[in-house]
Amino acid sequence: MDDTEERIKSIGGGSLLIAWQLKDRRVLIVGGGEVASQRIESVLTADALITLVSPSTGLHPRTKRLIDIRPDRIIYHDRAFEGEQELDGVDMVLTALDDNDLSHRIVQMSRQRRIPVNAADIPELCDFYFGAQIRDGPLQIMISTNGNGPRIASLIKTKLKAGLSGLEGEAITKVGILRNRLKERAPGVGGQIGRERMKWMTGLCNEWTLEDFSALNEKDMERLLDEGWEDNRRIPKPEELYSEKAKPLNLPVFPHTLPAAVGFVVGAMVAISIMWCQKR
Amino acid sequence: MDDTEERIKSIGGGSLLIAWQLKDRRVLIVGGGEVASQRIESVLTADALITLVSPSTGLHPRTKRLIDIRPDRIIYHDRAFEGEQELDGVDMVLTALDDNDLSHRIVQMSRQRRIPVNAADIPELCDFYFGAQIRDGPLQIMISTNGNGPRIASLIKTKLKAGLSGLEGEAITKVGILRNRLKERAPGVGGQIGRERMKWMTGLCNEWTLEDFSALNEKDMERLLDEGWEDNRRIPKPEELYSEKAKPLNLPVFPHTLPAAVGFVVGAMVAISIMWCQKR
Repeated sequence: MDDTEERIKSIGGGSLLIAWQLKDRRVLIVGGGEVASQRIESVLTADALITLVSPSTGLHPRTKRLIDIRPDRIIYHDRAFEGEQELDGVDMVLTALDDNDLSHRIVQMSRQRRIPVNAADIPELCDFYFGAQIRDGPLQIMISTNGNGPRIASLIKTKLKAGLSGLEGEAITKVGILRNRLKERAPGVGGQIGRERMKWMTGLCNEWTLEDFSALNEKDMERLLDEGWEDNRRIPKPEELYSEKAKPLNLPVFPHTLPAAVGFVVGAMVAISIMWCQKR
Repeated sequence: MDDTEERIKSIGGGSLLIAWQLKDRRVLIVGGGEVASQRIESVLTADALITLVSPSTGLHPRTKRLIDIRPDRIIYHDRAFEGEQELDGVDMVLTALDDNDLSHRIVQMSRQRRIPVNAADIPELCDFYFGAQIRDGPLQIMISTNGNGPRIASLIKTKLKAGLSGLEGEAITKVGILRNRLKERAPGVGGQIGRERMKWMTGLCNEWTLEDFSALNEKDMERLLDEGWEDNRRIPKPEELYSEKAKPLNLPVFPHTLPAAVGFVVGAMVAISIMWCQKR
């Protein structure tokens, strides 16, 4: 049995991580505490239209603030959940309640109508789980520990964030703009031209770093298309483009240069000192 | 307008990243090419039961291999999609077809039945998107660029992987075992004991690194519970536990030591050589 077969046989035990689309979809959130405020932020990120049902006595300050700031996206009802009619026209249901029985009933109603549902703190009732997240513009990263706890997920999140330069979101935005510019120059869906565009963009992504992309400005993009795409679909080196201005600072590529240099100088000074002392 | 209000007002433009639960749920995949093989792996990860519909002439070698290795999870029908009855009892539908018209029709049928659906390469028809993924046992990480392309997502994935030690999955597993041991010692759901358990585990996660957790063995866990939890809910330092054996190798904490040392030696040698040459 080879390694791949082993891997495929033991591939299970996880979740299906997906990016759910909620733009202008209706999400019902029942409950107004701290967890509800986190749920509101998560679905606002996806441009959902939220209906929030909770007596005002149960609102967390963060929930109140979100209701105040985003009346364009949150319809707030100051009352308890009233029954099945609340689910009419709803595309997703999230409960964040202390009352487990009510959560159970809402989940049952949602299941009957085939509406995706998550009940906070009751994993066995959830169609899906939330996880720790990193957001940087168009970049979203989710960390799931498959039920092993939010605290360890948050440790992983800290570690991942330390490995990011903070320029990744910018790089993705620039690649998106570049791709659109390329489509304007070489329009058409699918076929030969589509394949050529994809091949050129793939080549670029193989040769360039995220930092190279993040440093692109409007003029650079035009030059990149003129001197690359138009010149027989060539992949210019980033140095070619940045020759006239400072190359983007790319320190993380040589993280060892500085300590090595300091070590060199200190080593030299120690050796000179010792030899001088011996001379006298 | 303060920064937080700005942030909340401009929070949109993304997706809702979630961990969908598919254990023993039925997923219909229509199409058998390379994309279908990726879909099969993704849903196998979540322990789904797959029905795959595709003429055998359209099967990619990887798809064939998956069908062969996982007959326990994949029911394969060597034929084209036959109609609405295929959706009976199905919990999720994924199309991976060259035939856009057929994809459109399958998406419409799925929508009518409120079955979540993804049509490969037709984003406007998708309830959800897939993204680049990292898997390490119980750890799953998803990278979404919100439609800015799989190639740039794969650059981000490479960067994130470089920042991980490879011990994270092991660390999560160990934390999960430790949590279960703790629950055996101090059983009970919610209430005072639940809060105490949560507080102790949180304290531990704040003080310990992932590498510390990954190095725990059975004996260490018992000592940690004896000398920590049982001793007035104290948080032992990892050094206390590892005093009798080698501390887990934690090189990434001092990434500059080696280059500095090499620089020191080289610097000293260069200085000595120069001074010797001058002497002669």
